[in-house]
Amino acid sequence: MENCKSCSICNSADKVLEDFIETLDIETSLHRVESQKYKCNFGKNGVCCKLCANGPCRISEKSPRGICGATADTIVARNFLRAVAAGTACYLHVVENTARNLKSTGESNGKIKGEAALNRLADTFGISEADIHKKAVLVADKVLSDLYKPRFEKMDLVNKLGYAPRIENWQKLGIMPGGAKSEVFDAIVKTSTNLNSDAKDMMVNCLNLGISTGIYGLTLTNLLNDILLGEPSIRPAKVGFKVVDPSYINIMVTGHQQSIISYLEDILTTPEVIKKAQKAGAKGFKLVGCTCVGQDLQLRGEHYKDVFSGHAGNNFTSEALIATGGIDSIVSEFNCTLPGIEPVSDKFMVKMICVDDVAKKSNAEYVEYSFDKRKEISNHIIDESIKSYLDRRPKIKINIPENHGFDNVITGVSEGSLKEFLGGTWKPLVDLIAAGKIKGVAGIVGCSNLTAKGHDVFTVGLAKELIKRDIIVLSAGCSSGGLENVGLMSPEASKLAGSNLRAVCESLGIPPVLNFGPCLAIGRLEIVAKELAEYLNIDIPALPLVLSAPQWLEEQALADGCFGLSLGLPLHLAISPFIDGSETVSKLLTEDMESLTGGKLIIEGDIKKAADKLEEIVLAKRKGLGLR
Amino acid sequence: MENCKSCSICNSADKVLEDFIETLDIETSLHRVESQKYKCNFGKNGVCCKLCANGPCRISEKSPRGICGATADTIVARNFLRAVAAGTACYLHVVENTARNLKSTGESNGKIKGEAALNRLADTFGISEADIHKKAVLVADKVLSDLYKPRFEKMDLVNKLGYAPRIENWQKLGIMPGGAKSEVFDAIVKTSTNLNSDAKDMMVNCLNLGISTGIYGLTLTNLLNDILLGEPSIRPAKVGFKVVDPSYINIMVTGHQQSIISYLEDILTTPEVIKKAQKAGAKGFKLVGCTCVGQDLQLRGEHYKDVFSGHAGNNFTSEALIATGGIDSIVSEFNCTLPGIEPVSDKFMVKMICVDDVAKKSNAEYVEYSFDKRKEISNHIIDESIKSYLDRRPKIKINIPENHGFDNVITGVSEGSLKEFLGGTWKPLVDLIAAGKIKGVAGIVGCSNLTAKGHDVFTVGLAKELIKRDIIVLSAGCSSGGLENVGLMSPEASKLAGSNLRAVCESLGIPPVLNFGPCLAIGRLEIVAKELAEYLNIDIPALPLVLSAPQWLEEQALADGCFGLSLGLPLHLAISPFIDGSETVSKLLTEDMESLTGGKLIIEGDIKKAADKLEEIVLAKRKGLGLR
Repeated sequence: MENCKSCSICNSADKVLEDFIETLDIETSLHRVESQKYKCNFGKNGVCCKLCANGPCRISEKSPRGICGATADTIVARNFLRAVAAGTACYLHVVENTARNLKSTGESNGKIKGEAALNRLADTFGISEADIHKKAVLVADKVLSDLYKPRFEKMDLVNKLGYAPRIENWQKLGIMPGGAKSEVFDAIVKTSTNLNSDAKDMMVNCLNLGISTGIYGLTLTNLLNDILLGEPSIRPAKVGFKVVDPSYINIMVTGHQQSIISYLEDILTTPEVIKKAQKAGAKGFKLVGCTCVGQDLQLRGEHYKDVFSGHAGNNFTSEALIATGGIDSIVSEFNCTLPGIEPVSDKFMVKMICVDDVAKKSNAEYVEYSFDKRKEISNHIIDESIKSYLDRRPKIKINIPENHGFDNVITGVSEGSLKEFLGGTWKPLVDLIAAGKIKGVAGIVGCSNLTAKGHDVFTVGLAKELIKRDIIVLSAGCSSGGLENVGLMSPEASKLAGSNLRAVCESLGIPPVLNFGPCLAIGRLEIVAKELAEYLNIDIPALPLVLSAPQWLEEQALADGCFGLSLGLPLHLAISPFIDGSETVSKLLTEDMESLTGGKLIIEGDIKKAADKLEEIVLAKRKGLGLR
Repeated sequence: MENCKSCSICNSADKVLEDFIETLDIETSLHRVESQKYKCNFGKNGVCCKLCANGPCRISEKSPRGICGATADTIVARNFLRAVAAGTACYLHVVENTARNLKSTGESNGKIKGEAALNRLADTFGISEADIHKKAVLVADKVLSDLYKPRFEKMDLVNKLGYAPRIENWQKLGIMPGGAKSEVFDAIVKTSTNLNSDAKDMMVNCLNLGISTGIYGLTLTNLLNDILLGEPSIRPAKVGFKVVDPSYINIMVTGHQQSIISYLEDILTTPEVIKKAQKAGAKGFKLVGCTCVGQDLQLRGEHYKDVFSGHAGNNFTSEALIATGGIDSIVSEFNCTLPGIEPVSDKFMVKMICVDDVAKKSNAEYVEYSFDKRKEISNHIIDESIKSYLDRRPKIKINIPENHGFDNVITGVSEGSLKEFLGGTWKPLVDLIAAGKIKGVAGIVGCSNLTAKGHDVFTVGLAKELIKRDIIVLSAGCSSGGLENVGLMSPEASKLAGSNLRAVCESLGIPPVLNFGPCLAIGRLEIVAKELAEYLNIDIPALPLVLSAPQWLEEQALADGCFGLSLGLPLHLAISPFIDGSETVSKLLTEDMESLTGGKLIIEGDIKKAADKLEEIVLAKRKGLGLR
């Protein structure tokens, strides 16, 4: 593991982080960019196939077919569909567990923190039931029932949550999903050896998976979490490494399944548990947010003021966060928990516990989560964290860069809190857009990667370019973690906006980049899109709204992207999703898609050019709406 | 597509086929081995990761971790588990459709061709119901219900079909599968970006998937098909290209889901349909078997004498089969339908129809199969085949190598027909083994590939080596297609066996290599193993029984292999399943596995050495049983 410690690290948009990492005696992901800099072009172009023992086969001009006869089109499409299917699977795993936790909470008459959210969702589902616990069970069952339908039975909730003009489009295209888990399952079958070879069929299949991803994995996970954990409300918050307070026992949480750790959250601030911590010499316990579960906690931070110390950073910040020495244990329930944190945790004597085997890290203890055992599991985590605290604190130097982060990041933005902020109607936003004060809206979403110019470099650069052009930016995902750690989500950032947007921000006291939280909240952005379209009585593709996942990293991001495409939105990526080796697939996604859903993929690796293209689309859409 | 027509073709064990291909003016898979001969070692060793936009990352001494920190162990395990999960998914797709067809047949009071098989299976499941159609529905429902359980609910039928000592082992290892589709689903999640990094956890997970594959995908598909399509019975049959009779309209069938084409089979020989064919100038219709669905038809050939002309060959025979000119249409419902047949079909004007979108070929018409529409679909296939016949026959030269194939292949071997042949008890076989007349049993199963010394070269070579050593060979899968097309399944092949085995074969009139049919029938072999173990009151790993999938090709073969390992059997592969880059994974599968299940993986690329190793194990197991 130490081989690359002396490698020079890649750039980060977060210069304080970059400087901090330079001082560390550990190897991080940022170091390994150099040792992995020689990329295989077959892989990059998606034309490498490893599905069978005749392979790997690689497509080139001299060998235009694999041994079986598969063309570049087939291989690229197969690789892409499989990645999308896996990404969809990840999100569906999250929504399934969330629904099961809601169901168990209802069945056990547990705490429903978001009763209004429950009532709204039950209404949407057409459920009438007076008892809130029974109602919670019924809501959860509706979700679970859809997920478990066979593929030939269409899911019910798509009709209830989707936007009517979109549903019409999806029906026309034949992409209304059947049971989501079976759809994923068959997509995996479809991409296996010597099965489907039809690139167009596979690309259209991706849209179907995009719908399941968006409506279930994203939107519903948020809405179910709102019931279980309380709804977001807008507030200022502290972010970055400065949130780590070494006088507490600090549990770093990583993952995407917040409902799994909600019981832990609740008991960490009970007198009994605080007493345990005090006995060990600490003031109490704090949860330190990292990756999306941290973003989600931050979003709902209003309800977790005492236990949540703040969001420290995104995926590629996590190794350095551990190296501050201030983290005593790590509880992980999903990705994006980098394997790279394992040796760092070992070195800093940080106990790792995984509570979902899909995300078992090689050096972690695995404790299988179940709702019924949530008390024992939480107590075990507490005890192990205390043990780790006592073991490690005498031996490990605390080294927290206090200048890392910001104190006044605006967080808690959701479709609900934003509308409330605007006075309970989208009219003010629509008026600002109509008047040209806000030129348009860009969702900068998804992950952080290290290869689109460095850690968060493209994300931050693109956000700056867009706000300068009076395009307001909404963010969700690890992208948010990057944007907030460089100050773009603090109100002072309004001075970086164009004069019109700046005036809007200053009058409202908001930053020009709004933080919706975790990648799951891409589902919230898309509720905003739907509600704006509804308000204007137009279809979503007509909105002056663009999406970019500039630094997409994971398979999940590709599934998210397919939801964006199925919604008819333009979607920019800075790095090609391994499709360049197939003209057919590239053309389908970047050109022909427009005639199918109205959306299209834009691959542009230059920040300014990407901003130009997105602005051009915003302007064209404004024109389409009769706006200047 | 024509780029490699002038390439020299790889060897085939089937010399008549090889000579025939040499004369053809088409490019086949055998040609493309040359153009794809430079293999990427990162891919071969399983240390290439393409899960995220930071990648592809490749592990070497200089770069021992991917950018995220993933080690070779993590990457190899993840790639392997994903392949196994996809393979399991393929088989589960097949058993699900088969169960649905059985259910629909029951619900519509359709034809139950294997009533005895239905009664046996209902007894095994503990179902008592007098009405056979209702009984069929109940049997199908039991299967479907298990497949659709969530992961945390164990499946019922594992206990009913598994062997008690094995179940005990599986429970101890914690690998009893929950709902099979959800198990696959979560394995896909587990292998996505930044999720599981624990190689051992992932390898043990493969065993769980192996059980679902074996008991549901393999065993139950056979048993359900026995109900729907009639049970196998032993008989001599014709194989090879000589089965193609150009005076008929020939429909080539490829895939694994025979129940989907059973209605078509039934009506092709009705007077009405024959009349249609005669009107077009043909004698009638014939189905020409290719890949596993052909093997399955051959196995049950007794029930399809009029419509089934015989099995022509395995996957890599299919391009040449089309080039005989004698095929008028292709109906495909699954793999192994090579993409390479597409340009050949176009050139020979052969209409392709796919009836399951998971296997949609790029140049094929897609007709969605449903039980309710089986009549229209079958009529459509008939009409399209006639149209194709009329179009193409005046233009295409028929060129069938009449010397290809054999007339007296012994087929129809199953766990049932073999036991019946032995007088209704395993005693004669056990006695022959005990007396050393048969030294042991080797299952040579799985696919055909082109890279383990050429097309079927390793398979045929290994079978010859083993029978020479008095080890009887049972085969299932494309391996069977290869073995029968070189004569090893004809009674005359007994002269290639060692003197003891030869005497046994000659006295019984059987060949030394027994044909169980399609890869699905690996499940039948494993019933034989279970019944032999039961008869001897020992656990399966104690049997003098070895498995080899020498020329495994597909992801499905890896899932099959994991069933073999979970049964505690030694499993030989001639080509490493992309695991050599991880010492941990290699050791787990090839060494440590023995202490877990009793099985182990043997990777040996030399035919004689492989035979030596397998014989050595057989001898050791004999010794363990107190046999000389």
